[in-house]
Amino acid sequence: MSDPSNAAEPGHWGPPYLLYLGSAADDLAIKTARGLAYWRPDWCVGQLRRHDCKPTLGLPEMSIGEARNAGANTMVIGAANAGGVMSPEIVADAIAALEAGLHVAAGLHQKLRENPDIVAAARRHGRVLFDARDPMPGLPVGNGRPRAGRRLLTVGTDCSVGKMYTTLAIERAMRKRGLAADFRATGQTGILVAGSGIPIDAVVADFIAGAAEKISPARLDGGWDLIEGQGSLFHPSYAGVSLGLLHGSQPDALVLCHEPTRRHMRGLPDYPLPELKRCLQANLAAAQLTNPTVKAVGVALNTSGLAEADAVVACRRISELLELPCEDPVTMGVEAIVDNLLACCAN
Amino acid sequence: MSDPSNAAEPGHWGPPYLLYLGSAADDLAIKTARGLAYWRPDWCVGQLRRHDCKPTLGLPEMSIGEARNAGANTMVIGAANAGGVMSPEIVADAIAALEAGLHVAAGLHQKLRENPDIVAAARRHGRVLFDARDPMPGLPVGNGRPRAGRRLLTVGTDCSVGKMYTTLAIERAMRKRGLAADFRATGQTGILVAGSGIPIDAVVADFIAGAAEKISPARLDGGWDLIEGQGSLFHPSYAGVSLGLLHGSQPDALVLCHEPTRRHMRGLPDYPLPELKRCLQANLAAAQLTNPTVKAVGVALNTSGLAEADAVVACRRISELLELPCEDPVTMGVEAIVDNLLACCAN
Repeated sequence: MSDPSNAAEPGHWGPPYLLYLGSAADDLAIKTARGLAYWRPDWCVGQLRRHDCKPTLGLPEMSIGEARNAGANTMVIGAANAGGVMSPEIVADAIAALEAGLHVAAGLHQKLRENPDIVAAARRHGRVLFDARDPMPGLPVGNGRPRAGRRLLTVGTDCSVGKMYTTLAIERAMRKRGLAADFRATGQTGILVAGSGIPIDAVVADFIAGAAEKISPARLDGGWDLIEGQGSLFHPSYAGVSLGLLHGSQPDALVLCHEPTRRHMRGLPDYPLPELKRCLQANLAAAQLTNPTVKAVGVALNTSGLAEADAVVACRRISELLELPCEDPVTMGVEAIVDNLLACCAN
Repeated sequence: MSDPSNAAEPGHWGPPYLLYLGSAADDLAIKTARGLAYWRPDWCVGQLRRHDCKPTLGLPEMSIGEARNAGANTMVIGAANAGGVMSPEIVADAIAALEAGLHVAAGLHQKLRENPDIVAAARRHGRVLFDARDPMPGLPVGNGRPRAGRRLLTVGTDCSVGKMYTTLAIERAMRKRGLAADFRATGQTGILVAGSGIPIDAVVADFIAGAAEKISPARLDGGWDLIEGQGSLFHPSYAGVSLGLLHGSQPDALVLCHEPTRRHMRGLPDYPLPELKRCLQANLAAAQLTNPTVKAVGVALNTSGLAEADAVVACRRISELLELPCEDPVTMGVEAIVDNLLACCAN
C-alpha cells in the first residue's frame, strides 16, 4: 500500500491535500474529509465545496486552481454516498483536478481506476490515482489460530459513531505514555490517515476475517495493535463485516463506541439503536469464539450532539450502567479508558 | 446470469457435463461435483480424476477426449481448495479441455477469466468460460426494509453440513405438494444446479445483506423462497458471510443443518462444533433483527457417517432436544420439516 508520507517523492500522491466535499448532504457524508482534517491538519490546505454542499470543515474555500497555487499535491475525494457511488459531478471534478496537475485519491466503492475517463485523464497528465478502498490482492482465509500480541478493537452501536477517532485517540494517548501501540486501519479514512491498512468492507466476503488477521499479525514486542472497528453487529446492512472483523481481530479488549443522540440506525429509520448493555454483550459473546478471554475496557461516547453538562451526565450514567470508564475521546480524552485497558490486561 | 438449461444453443456453456475432480484430497473437496451429480444426474456423462484423486462420484472415468466423444459440452471444475486457489494442474487441464472443444465452468475464487493462458485458449478455440463465483455487478447495499413474500433459510453448525441439499430437497418436496417454492442459490454448486443465483461469499463485504435481498425479492404469489445458507455463525473464517445472509434474507423460517460425526469446525482442528441449542438460538437472535417473527421449523441431519439405526436414534434425540422435526433429507426425506413449516407459517 502506498504511503502518503512519501509526499516529497515527485510524482507521488500524498499531502498537501485539497479536501473535496462535492455536493455532500450532511456532516456524516464527509467523514473521510473530516477525519483527515482533524488528525492531519497540517496536510490539508483547503476544501472544495459545490454550491449545494451543506457541511463545511472550516478550511479555506478553494477552487482547484487556487488549491494548486496554494501548494496542494493531491485532491482527496472525501465525501461518500451510500454504496460509494461516484456521481457525474465527482467524475468531472476529478478530471479537472488531474488536468490542473493534482493527483487524486478517493475512498469510494466505485474506483477511480475503473472510470475510463478518469484513467485517461490521469495518464494524459502523468498523475496518480489512489483508491483507498482497493483491498490488497491475495488475502488469506481466516485461520482462527491464536497469535502472539495484544489487540484492542473498537465496536459500535451503529456506523459512524466515532470508532476511528477513538482508536486514533487511544494510539495517541498510549504513545504519549511511551507504550508501543499502532493504529490498524480498516476504512478509507483510516488508510489515508495511517498510510496503510485494508478496507475491510471492500474485501471479498470470504476473506473478512482473514483481512483482520492480516492487518494485526502476531507481534512479540509487548505492544498493542489498535484495530479500527467497522459498522455494528446490529446494523442490518453491514453486520457481516463487523462480525468477521471481530473474529479475525481476536481482540483482548473491546471499546464500545456510541452516539447518544442517534435516533435510529444510520440510513434505516425503522431500526432503533440497540440497548447499550445488550450490544456490548453480543459483541463480547461473538468475540469469545476466537478469544475466550476478551474483556470490555471502556465506552467512547461521541457527545458532539450534547451540551457540555449533558455530556458529562451521559458519560457518568453509561459508566454506572456498564461498570466501565466512559468518556468522549474528542472533548475529554481517553485516559480513563487507557488506564482501565492497562489494568485489565496487565499480564 | 447464464442459464445452463440453454444447452441446445450452440456455442453456449451447459450440460452435458464432464465433472473434473482433479487431485481432490477428500470427499468434502468435491462437493460442487457431487451436488451436480446428485441433483442433475442426467446432465453428467462422466468424471475426470487425476492419479492422486482420493474421492469418486462413481460416474464413468473419462479423459477429456473420451468425454468429448461421449457428448460432453462443458467441463465443470468441481473440486475446491481452501480459498479457492487454482493449481497449475487445474490450469493445464482447463486449457486441455478448451483445446478439445469443451466449454469450461468453475466455482473457484480465482477466476478462469483472470488466468491469461485460460482466456487465450478459450478465445483461440471459441469456447465459453463461466465463473459461477462471479457476483453480479451493481449489487445494492442491504436496506433491511420488510418485504412481501415468505422465505426459508438453511443455517448450519458448520460449513459443508448439507445446507444446499436440504434446501433443494425442501424445494422438491414442496413442489410435489403443488406449492410455489423456489430454490435461491448462494453458492457455486447451487448456481450450477439452479442456473442462477449470487455467490454470496464472493461479493464485496459491504454488499452481503444486499445480495441476499436481491436473490429473494418481494413476491406476492403466496409462494416460498428457499434460500441456500452458507457457512456458520460459529465458523471463525466465514461467520460474517453467514450473518449478512441471515439479515438480508429476513427469513420467516430457519432449518438448522448439522453433521453429527464432525469433530471440529471444518479446517480448524482447535474449534469444536457449537452445541445445537446454542447454535439455533444464536441464529434466531441474529435473524430477529430483520424479522422479529422468525421461527425454527426443523433440523436436517446429515447422517452419511452413521449406521442406519444410529441415524434414526440421532434424529429422535435431536428432535426431543430442540422440539423440532429432525430428519436426514437424503435418506429420510423432508416431509416432517415441510409439514411443520406449513403449520408454523400458515397465515
